[in-house]
Amino acid sequence: MEKIAMLGGGSWATALVKILSENGARVDWWLRSKDDVQHLLRTRHNPRYLSAVQFDLNRVHPTTDLDDAVEEADWLVLAVPAAFVQPVLDKLDRDALKHKRIVSAIKGMIPGKNQLVTDYVAERFRLPHTRLGVIAGPCHAEEVALEKQSYLTIGSPDAALAEDFSELLRNRYVRAHAAQDLDGIEYCAVMKNIIALTGGIAHGVGYGDNFLAVLVSNAVQEIRRFLQAINPQPRDLSASAYLGDLLVTAYSQFSRNRTFGSMVGRGYSVKSAQLEMNMVAEGYYAVKSIHELNKKLKVNMPITEAAYNILYERISPAVEMELLKEKLR
Amino acid sequence: MEKIAMLGGGSWATALVKILSENGARVDWWLRSKDDVQHLLRTRHNPRYLSAVQFDLNRVHPTTDLDDAVEEADWLVLAVPAAFVQPVLDKLDRDALKHKRIVSAIKGMIPGKNQLVTDYVAERFRLPHTRLGVIAGPCHAEEVALEKQSYLTIGSPDAALAEDFSELLRNRYVRAHAAQDLDGIEYCAVMKNIIALTGGIAHGVGYGDNFLAVLVSNAVQEIRRFLQAINPQPRDLSASAYLGDLLVTAYSQFSRNRTFGSMVGRGYSVKSAQLEMNMVAEGYYAVKSIHELNKKLKVNMPITEAAYNILYERISPAVEMELLKEKLR
Repeated sequence: MEKIAMLGGGSWATALVKILSENGARVDWWLRSKDDVQHLLRTRHNPRYLSAVQFDLNRVHPTTDLDDAVEEADWLVLAVPAAFVQPVLDKLDRDALKHKRIVSAIKGMIPGKNQLVTDYVAERFRLPHTRLGVIAGPCHAEEVALEKQSYLTIGSPDAALAEDFSELLRNRYVRAHAAQDLDGIEYCAVMKNIIALTGGIAHGVGYGDNFLAVLVSNAVQEIRRFLQAINPQPRDLSASAYLGDLLVTAYSQFSRNRTFGSMVGRGYSVKSAQLEMNMVAEGYYAVKSIHELNKKLKVNMPITEAAYNILYERISPAVEMELLKEKLR
Repeated sequence: MEKIAMLGGGSWATALVKILSENGARVDWWLRSKDDVQHLLRTRHNPRYLSAVQFDLNRVHPTTDLDDAVEEADWLVLAVPAAFVQPVLDKLDRDALKHKRIVSAIKGMIPGKNQLVTDYVAERFRLPHTRLGVIAGPCHAEEVALEKQSYLTIGSPDAALAEDFSELLRNRYVRAHAAQDLDGIEYCAVMKNIIALTGGIAHGVGYGDNFLAVLVSNAVQEIRRFLQAINPQPRDLSASAYLGDLLVTAYSQFSRNRTFGSMVGRGYSVKSAQLEMNMVAEGYYAVKSIHELNKKLKVNMPITEAAYNILYERISPAVEMELLKEKLR
């Protein structure tokens, strides 16, 4: 029986615990909230996310004790918000992950460091990238809860790791496959939130579906240019792990990034949109990280720059979108 | 003043007449229905489509007389349903288009002939392809009526033709650019309807947004393979004329192809879905044409084949989608 430590209590973590445990794995599930752990132990449901999903407590072991969750695990799956990766993982001993394989399900970068989550983990725990992977793919956690057909891609430079973790995920409604492009898949997962956020801004300003389709088409080209600069290698961006993930986010009415962008487009300040939503959209930080990484690379990135100008330079969304529309085709 | 003959009375024709005439062109507008022409002359509105748009009758001349509409025109714009191209154009003299440039706005093939509209026009009127172009791009006519920002691509082997027609379209809310890939753009406009229809079937059967994103990603790869077989040349399918057009159709709740597919997915027979909708979705014919063209080419096209099996071989949508889902990733 594979032993998996899941870090995070959000909707994506909850969906992954469902898939992995129903496939027979033991999941030691670390959540930050004592109340949530108590609720899970008492009712077998996560009170906050996908609350219809019932867990088998013979296989799923919710806990707030991080060391305890990680200690015996073969696999560590990271599904906390990007902003919490560093504070959470820094509590672990530098040798704690020595014999484990680590898979990131996080769609954001380490704030302030502009570093991919997998790069941070490799550095902090002195691990080669062959011990690391990412989970990507167009996958609303809510649809996993409903057992709707979904597809996941596991990216890792170690083909065996990617295939082994794919096998842990495969079931009646999940198809998973292995890919090698760890960095490209991880950057794309970050950048898609920028596009969803900018699509939200455009919608808030009053642009329609014709514009959104052009924005997303241009986004594929922008992502391709960035990836070729930061990690050049042949990759087909129309694969599900890239384009599919971008589509499911940019076209979702429920995406937090889109909702946040839409509020900003309608005239909310960044601060009041965040207060109103009572949360921070990952895309907000992604814009800054990618913008800063691009200072050296100098890739032509009109969409990311428009989002940066609106969110960090207080340029009016309507004015900035007028300028952006001239740069797209 | 450029003189344009517009053939067709549908929503896309109506949107194009608005754009062209408001830019100062004279439009001789051929509609099949006498009542619609009378209504237009009396009220300045098309009673059936985009009925909020008012036309300037100093520039727009609705008529049911085809020869009269075409005679003086510099440009002929085709915007009738694909099924009517042959019966309508065959009324014209073989030399009637001798000194004209022809642009097709049609997203379908000549039924029974499996021929692109531009290929049919070239053959029937003995014209070189340098006199022909297509209009593509993610463009709901309804959003043009609302003057929402839209983008169009004019494809023609003659760069001057493509640029000249682009210039006739450009205005405050329409950006247009020239491209050379006439055939690729035209095939893609046909094939996107197959994808929207199949997406509708999947939705009708019960598949969700995760699956749709994977379907569309795989569709880009399927379209690329087909185009490389039938008309090999380098092309970037993430350009708006290809991917954008696919997205605006596949993600539209209002697409007739999607609606038709969704009814079939929910268990309507093809015939009863057509009766219920009181119309035929272009994608229904496109499936057959592309399937037949592919008999020789033998390209791997799981999505088109699934649609063909459901629509023409009466295979159960649920069964066929089960098989399709295994072929996607």
